[in-house]
Amino acid sequence: MDDVLADAASRFIEYADIRFGRKIRPVDLHNRTWADVAGTTPEVIRSWLFEEGFFRGMKVIPDSQEVVARLCEKYEVFIVSAATEFPNSLKEKLEWLNEHFPFISWTHTVFCGHKYMIQADYLIDDHEKNLIRFPGKPVLFTAHHNLHLNHYTRVNNWREVAEMFL
Amino acid sequence: MDDVLADAASRFIEYADIRFGRKIRPVDLHNRTWADVAGTTPEVIRSWLFEEGFFRGMKVIPDSQEVVARLCEKYEVFIVSAATEFPNSLKEKLEWLNEHFPFISWTHTVFCGHKYMIQADYLIDDHEKNLIRFPGKPVLFTAHHNLHLNHYTRVNNWREVAEMFL
Repeated sequence: MDDVLADAASRFIEYADIRFGRKIRPVDLHNRTWADVAGTTPEVIRSWLFEEGFFRGMKVIPDSQEVVARLCEKYEVFIVSAATEFPNSLKEKLEWLNEHFPFISWTHTVFCGHKYMIQADYLIDDHEKNLIRFPGKPVLFTAHHNLHLNHYTRVNNWREVAEMFL
Repeated sequence: MDDVLADAASRFIEYADIRFGRKIRPVDLHNRTWADVAGTTPEVIRSWLFEEGFFRGMKVIPDSQEVVARLCEKYEVFIVSAATEFPNSLKEKLEWLNEHFPFISWTHTVFCGHKYMIQADYLIDDHEKNLIRFPGKPVLFTAHHNLHLNHYTRVNNWREVAEMFL
């Protein structure tokens, strides 16, 4: 979900502005940690992820709704989010999906920690830790934090996902 | 979780007593629906599952803590709970696991709808709908609602799980 369907980076930029008055541009995030860019500690950033509303208020990544809806016509699509680390996020993520991806049923929503027990043909994900042990075909979705990776099939946006799968 | 680690049946009996003054014995539940036993509608029973506290207050199934802890020494154990249908249950189930199974990490906790995308060698579950499409070896954990099933390897309690796997 985060940085693939939900715009986590923009949410971070918003919080850094509200909390620290820092004006951060998306390009500032390239291959740097949020804590580094915001001039704070990883613990402070991490605490945001436990705050009520952090996940619920995320914007939708462009074109994801339309493309996921079209993928659902051709494939069986599961949303698999590494979310169990953040107890508050679970209900918010369900509500967020219900609002923005109402065509994704609870039957096809998975909240987990590790993703390597997921069995599927493809995994579209922004984190190498999720892709590296995936038994199917991994597809890297471009995010600020993964620009340095060059050994995965990469999609830069949802239009490219559509080109690859539709 | 429900009826395997967490005693959902006892929780139901408790609610039926509090809400309707019905005194239900566990044996009354054999192969009957909760609504039928409580003399109410499926919708009323279903509404309980959306209530705050319903999941959080469940008792632990006898011997499950000790046996799961021992399983964790020999196997990689994931807790996979069909929970995304009930938004309130998610945080409660995490808290419940943290309290009663603190040795199960969030990394090995999965909340889903369907379970058939889970890749594992074994699945210990009380519902045929989860076992029937599981690609590994299914193991039926005895519950009031599955006594009529006779084509699965069955364990009647956690001592039998220990015998089978340890």
